[in-house]
Amino acid sequence: MDEIVVPFPADFHVHLRQGAMSELVTPHVALGGIRTAYIMPNLIPPITTTERAMEYKAELEKIDPKVEYLMTLYLHENMLEEIDVEGQEGKVLRGVHEIRKASKAGVKGIKSYPRGVTTHSSSGIESYEPYYPVFKALEEEGMVLNLHGEVPSDDKLNISVLNAEKHFLSHLRKLAGDFPKLKIVLEHATTKEAVDCVKSLPNNVGCTITAHHLLLTIDSVPSQPFHFCKPIAKEPVDRAALQEVVASGHPRFFLGSDSAPHSIVNKIPKMPSSYLTQETGAIEGNGPQPCAAGVYTSPILLPLVAHIFDKLGALDKLPGFASHNGRAFYGMQREGAEGNVTLKRVEGGGRVPAFYKGSERGIDAVPFMAGEALGWEIA
Amino acid sequence: MDEIVVPFPADFHVHLRQGAMSELVTPHVALGGIRTAYIMPNLIPPITTTERAMEYKAELEKIDPKVEYLMTLYLHENMLEEIDVEGQEGKVLRGVHEIRKASKAGVKGIKSYPRGVTTHSSSGIESYEPYYPVFKALEEEGMVLNLHGEVPSDDKLNISVLNAEKHFLSHLRKLAGDFPKLKIVLEHATTKEAVDCVKSLPNNVGCTITAHHLLLTIDSVPSQPFHFCKPIAKEPVDRAALQEVVASGHPRFFLGSDSAPHSIVNKIPKMPSSYLTQETGAIEGNGPQPCAAGVYTSPILLPLVAHIFDKLGALDKLPGFASHNGRAFYGMQREGAEGNVTLKRVEGGGRVPAFYKGSERGIDAVPFMAGEALGWEIA
Repeated sequence: MDEIVVPFPADFHVHLRQGAMSELVTPHVALGGIRTAYIMPNLIPPITTTERAMEYKAELEKIDPKVEYLMTLYLHENMLEEIDVEGQEGKVLRGVHEIRKASKAGVKGIKSYPRGVTTHSSSGIESYEPYYPVFKALEEEGMVLNLHGEVPSDDKLNISVLNAEKHFLSHLRKLAGDFPKLKIVLEHATTKEAVDCVKSLPNNVGCTITAHHLLLTIDSVPSQPFHFCKPIAKEPVDRAALQEVVASGHPRFFLGSDSAPHSIVNKIPKMPSSYLTQETGAIEGNGPQPCAAGVYTSPILLPLVAHIFDKLGALDKLPGFASHNGRAFYGMQREGAEGNVTLKRVEGGGRVPAFYKGSERGIDAVPFMAGEALGWEIA
Repeated sequence: MDEIVVPFPADFHVHLRQGAMSELVTPHVALGGIRTAYIMPNLIPPITTTERAMEYKAELEKIDPKVEYLMTLYLHENMLEEIDVEGQEGKVLRGVHEIRKASKAGVKGIKSYPRGVTTHSSSGIESYEPYYPVFKALEEEGMVLNLHGEVPSDDKLNISVLNAEKHFLSHLRKLAGDFPKLKIVLEHATTKEAVDCVKSLPNNVGCTITAHHLLLTIDSVPSQPFHFCKPIAKEPVDRAALQEVVASGHPRFFLGSDSAPHSIVNKIPKMPSSYLTQETGAIEGNGPQPCAAGVYTSPILLPLVAHIFDKLGALDKLPGFASHNGRAFYGMQREGAEGNVTLKRVEGGGRVPAFYKGSERGIDAVPFMAGEALGWEIA
């Protein structure tokens, strides 16, 4: 197959940031062939109100009106406050009130980050039970619960970035059992155990898979900060499970790129300013700062997915993975030839830029597979 | 305990490099409190002859004569060539001939790198059986076989950097069984399985442990290239096993720092030169190059080990770990008060420099725990 048509391609997990970085990366969604994008709410401060979600949506539409932006809220402990609401008797949980408002405004879901596991997750939650009234409201409104499926590392329990996802799966099973009508998405699965778990759960549980986790294993992460993201890529057997489930066309697995740009200076260990000194010998100062977590795939997303599905011999499953499956799960079907995006095989073509540079100093981002040829381009 | 004396501290695994980098880092061995250093042979080209080993030793002694340098050869496939030797009938294996010469010259051992697993290991070996005559000669000469204990990654067998050491242990067991009188060192163990394996083997098998593997787990590796080394740090349960065995004072576990300096530019993803362009938008070029493997601990080694043993409540085991155990294994005991190095607790002291800078551009290195206070200093 040298050409493939994907109707209304959708990315059900993408980070579009704020300010000058948002100006740089938001137009890359359409550049990557995507028509509908599900936008993560982990801004500073996190988006916890409908009002802020709508403002953010307007900001994105102003930058690029060609894309349909689906908004989420950030599941936050301030949603556990009891508040007075005009026209309602007694106290109401802020989260429940917010979900009712959000649903009316067209917000599609709410994202849960376990505390401290990834970029801007310090406002994340620690236990799900207190949020059950919020989940009940979500279920009633037909909205989606999006789960970052990792528990925090804990030396005493031998929980590390390697098994943080496996340890999360008991939470996923419990939530799926306690809310059988709530749409739940396990985001960016990286392990065989997660794939098997989602397959074993009922139809209310879906799962996003990123493009980069279909290609990387842990072997190429520690040497390359531009491959570092949360959850980190795991073992070959895990990657094989991800590849198998998408190549099988399983209807509850779909594209969520988790495309997460960071300025180059934040992806490279920051050296102290004394690095440029002329002195020799021992130079005092702080050590190099660690790198930010995130792999950036937006601007090349659909050609990258074609590159992968081609390698897997599963190009026929591409429209399902990159459009139909996720749209069906979210109830966001779209029809009409105007949504078609055509991908073409071009030997040696589809070369990924080394980086993208914004209009301000320090606003730049290195895409995944920088400098390499994908062999697929958008026609 | 606020002060501890280590007689004749020894580092049984250290990389001192070549050229300007060697000029920078060789004096750091003594700076870190070490009197005897076992020098790795993975230069370019690798040190495969006694003559080169002796030349290299002389180079190091010229830079800093205060340290006793113990030399090793690099187990190399050219050792499998059959050669003519003056005064001997028939063909002789180059490796066997070289071991006889090396022993006479005072070379202490031979280092085996599985092919392709770490810095400058592309000349490494693929199978041990062909080298058995070399190992026999080593055994007869009382020399040591130093093993980098990882097998190469293999997607089909689900071998990755995470389990490469575990998969190596069957080779270690076989070698220990086939050569019961050969001194074998499993270098820089990182897993509970490796520790258990060495403990279960007879007294001819020893094990080095680095300082950094006593502190790191996988969690702090992917975000920090200065923590990236081979083998990579593993899970909390593995670090706990390393800590337990050194805190127990087990006589066959001893310090081998695997201190491995790289220029800062090689530890940070290399960006294409177009990075400094004034343009905006998509910039063509190659992607960022991966980072080199190695953690640099030489200049702070003994204070760092004191910091660790203090945290473990095992300061009394420090002289064993950092001198007696390794010296006994190698048969390198030294006596006399002139070899004493005294470490002192200094609250907030022992601050590690941000980096060390050599006299040439690009010759520099960032030490482990840069900018942090070890709380211990050499008196």
